[in-house]
Amino acid sequence: MIEINSERLLDSLYRLRDIGAVDRGVVRPAFSDADMHARHWLRQEFIEAGLRAEIDGVGNVLGISNNSGPAILLGSHLDTQPKGGWLDGALGVIYGLEVARTLSENCLTNHLAVDVVAFQDEESRFLGCLGSRSFVGILDEDTFTNSIDKDGIRLIDAIDQAGLSGARRSKLDPDRYLGFLEAHIEQGPHLEDEDMKIGVVTSIVGLGSREFVFRGQQNHAGTTMMQVRKDAATALFDLAHTLNNSFSNLATPSTVWTMGRVLVEPGAVSIIPGYAELGLQYRDPSNEILDLLDAEVDLVVKEVSKRVSAKISIKTVGDRIKPIELDFLLRKNLGLAAEQYAPNRWIDMPSGAYHDAAIISQLLPAAMLFIPSIGGISHDFSEDSHQDDIILGCNVLAEAVIKILSD
Amino acid sequence: MIEINSERLLDSLYRLRDIGAVDRGVVRPAFSDADMHARHWLRQEFIEAGLRAEIDGVGNVLGISNNSGPAILLGSHLDTQPKGGWLDGALGVIYGLEVARTLSENCLTNHLAVDVVAFQDEESRFLGCLGSRSFVGILDEDTFTNSIDKDGIRLIDAIDQAGLSGARRSKLDPDRYLGFLEAHIEQGPHLEDEDMKIGVVTSIVGLGSREFVFRGQQNHAGTTMMQVRKDAATALFDLAHTLNNSFSNLATPSTVWTMGRVLVEPGAVSIIPGYAELGLQYRDPSNEILDLLDAEVDLVVKEVSKRVSAKISIKTVGDRIKPIELDFLLRKNLGLAAEQYAPNRWIDMPSGAYHDAAIISQLLPAAMLFIPSIGGISHDFSEDSHQDDIILGCNVLAEAVIKILSD
Repeated sequence: MIEINSERLLDSLYRLRDIGAVDRGVVRPAFSDADMHARHWLRQEFIEAGLRAEIDGVGNVLGISNNSGPAILLGSHLDTQPKGGWLDGALGVIYGLEVARTLSENCLTNHLAVDVVAFQDEESRFLGCLGSRSFVGILDEDTFTNSIDKDGIRLIDAIDQAGLSGARRSKLDPDRYLGFLEAHIEQGPHLEDEDMKIGVVTSIVGLGSREFVFRGQQNHAGTTMMQVRKDAATALFDLAHTLNNSFSNLATPSTVWTMGRVLVEPGAVSIIPGYAELGLQYRDPSNEILDLLDAEVDLVVKEVSKRVSAKISIKTVGDRIKPIELDFLLRKNLGLAAEQYAPNRWIDMPSGAYHDAAIISQLLPAAMLFIPSIGGISHDFSEDSHQDDIILGCNVLAEAVIKILSD
Repeated sequence: MIEINSERLLDSLYRLRDIGAVDRGVVRPAFSDADMHARHWLRQEFIEAGLRAEIDGVGNVLGISNNSGPAILLGSHLDTQPKGGWLDGALGVIYGLEVARTLSENCLTNHLAVDVVAFQDEESRFLGCLGSRSFVGILDEDTFTNSIDKDGIRLIDAIDQAGLSGARRSKLDPDRYLGFLEAHIEQGPHLEDEDMKIGVVTSIVGLGSREFVFRGQQNHAGTTMMQVRKDAATALFDLAHTLNNSFSNLATPSTVWTMGRVLVEPGAVSIIPGYAELGLQYRDPSNEILDLLDAEVDLVVKEVSKRVSAKISIKTVGDRIKPIELDFLLRKNLGLAAEQYAPNRWIDMPSGAYHDAAIISQLLPAAMLFIPSIGGISHDFSEDSHQDDIILGCNVLAEAVIKILSD
C-alpha cells in the first residue's frame, strides 16, 4: 500500500488557499489576478515535481510526465465561484500533483506516467468547463469569441490580459491515456450522513430546465374584481405548486428539482401583477426519468392553463444535459483502492453536480472519487473537509492509479 | 336643473393636466415642482372664483366661501402617482371649483356656501392621505416628523423646500359643514361594463394585510436531495396557492385579495432558495368578512407549515383599515340628482380603493360620486374618461349640493 506525503499534500493545499483567500474561503474566479497567480504557482510546482509544464491558450495548466504511456491523467479545476470554498476544484488538482510526486519518488512506481491538469473556468465565469471543453476539442470558435462574463468583459480580452493570447490551446491525446480520474469534495451530505469516507462516483446526473413566462394584466388591487383579473402571480403560484406535487409522484430517490428564480412584476403589494417569470431545473441520473419529467412539465402547463386567467408559456427549453455513466474499469479500481484504505466505509454514488470529468468522458474513460464535505456545504466560504479525510482520499487515488497503470 | 359651464370645466381640467404632463399622463407627485405649481395655480383660481384661498402647512389648498354656513365641502387631491393619470384626484378638485363658480353666478344659488379643498399626498409619496389626516386632526407629530419618501427625503424638508414651513395647518371646522362630497373616477370597470353613468358610493372597503417570511436553507440544487431540503420557495408557492384556494371559498362577490410582492433569495436557478417573502392584501366592504379572512390566514399558515420544511412566519400584521359606510342622507341626495341627469343609469356601489373621504368621514358626514373610467384603467398614463361623462358628473354634483344645502 502506497502512502502519499500527507504533510506535503496539506502544505500545498494551504499554499494554494492563500492565493485569493478571503475569510475562511477563496475568491479566485477564472482569469482573475489570483487565478493567474495560482496557475503560475502551480506550473512551478509541476516543474519541481519533474513534469513538463505549460499554461495553454485558455489557461489550463498541464504537467506532463517524461515517462512514456500508457498514462493516467489526474486533475480538476483551480478557479472558484465568486465566493468560493477552498477545496472544491483545488483538491483534485493538488491530489494529482501529490500522486505524481509520490509515485516519482518510489522506485517501484517511478516508471509510471502520471500527468496532471488544472482546467480553467469550470465555474462558468465566462463559459462552464471552458478548459476541459477546449482540451477535448468541443469548444466552437463562435462560442469562444462571443463569451462574456456578467459584467460584459469578453473572454478573449481576459485571455489577452492574462498574457495568454499567444499560447496554443492544448488538445487531449487519447492514445496516451488509459483514463482520467477527478477527485472532488462531495458538495453534499451523503457521505457524512452515512459515516462513509469515500464515494466512487457511478454517474454524473443529467439536467433539464425550463423558463416559464406568465402574462396577465396589471391592475388596481382594490377596484378590480376577482372574476375579471388576469393575475400573473396567481398563475405562477399554481404552476409551481402543482409541479412540486406532480414531480414528487414521478421522482426516484435520485431525482431533484428546484425553482430558484422567481420574478413578479411590478412587485407592489397593492397592484395586481401583470407579468411573472419562473425558472425550473431538474436533475436525474437516468435519461428516461428526465424524459418523463419533460413530458410532465408540458402536461402541468396545460392543466394549470385551463384554470388560470393569465397566459402561461415556456420561454426557454434548456438544452438537455445527458446523464453520464462513468467508466466501469476505472470505478472498479477506485473501489478496490477504497476498500484497502477504508474497508466497508466507501460507497458507489451518483454525482448531483456537473464536473470536468463529464466533458473528458467524451474522449477518454473517466471516473471520479468523492471525499466527505463537512455539513454537505459547498460554494460557500465555510466549505471544509476533515484533514484525515483529505489525506485518506489522496492515498486511495494514488493506489488506484498504481492498480490501473499496473494492470 | 342647474347646468355647469362645461367648456370652463374642461378648460380648467386641461390646464391642470398641462402642469406635469408626460405623454398622455401626468407626473405630479406630492411636493414636486409640478405639484406646487399646480397648487399655486389652483389658489389663484379659487380667488378668481370669489373664494378666500390659502395653501396650508401641509400643502392643502383651501378655498372658503364668504357665505355663512351651513356649508358643503367639495374636493379631492391634486397629487398623482409617480406615473399617474390626468383625472384621478384632479377631477374632484376641479368639479368643486366649477360647482362653486356655477352656484355663485346664479341668483337662485349665490347665497349657498360651497368650500373647496385640494388635499395633499393622497397617493402616499410620504404618507397616504397626509392632507386629509392633517385637516381632520389625526396626524400625530411623530409620524409627521419621521415621514420619508422612498428616496429617503424627509417630509418636513419637502415642506420647507415648498416654502410652507411657516404656514399653519388648517383644521376642519365640523360646525360649518353639512358634509363632504368627493367626486372621483371609478378606477374600475363596473360602470362601463354595466353601461352606467354615475356610481353613488355606499362604502369604502376595508383592508387587511400580512407580510410572510419563509426561512429555509440555501444549498446546491444538484447535490442536495429532496428529503433534506429546506426550500423557502416551495413553502411560499404552497402557502400562496393554498391561500388563493381557501380565500375563494370564503369570498363574497365584493372580496378581493392580491399577493403582488414576491421575493425569493438568492434567486439563482441552480441554488435552493434559503429565504423568501410574500405580501398579501385583502379588501372587503364588511368588517366581519375581513375577520374571517384574518382567521383563515392563520389557519392556512398552520396547515402549510405542517407539510413544508422551511419555517413560515408572519412578519407584519398590517393595521386593519375598517370599511366605512358613507352618509345615507348625502348618498340619497346624490342618487336623486343622478336620477335627474341620468335616469336609470346610475347605481349604488362600494369603492374598492381608499379615498380622502374615508378620513373626512371621521369628523363629518361624507359621500362620494364615481364617473366611468374607460377600460377601468387608473394609475396609468392611459387613464381616461369620456367628455360627456365628465360633464354629466359635475352637473350631478352641482345639483346634489343645491339639494343638500336647500333641505
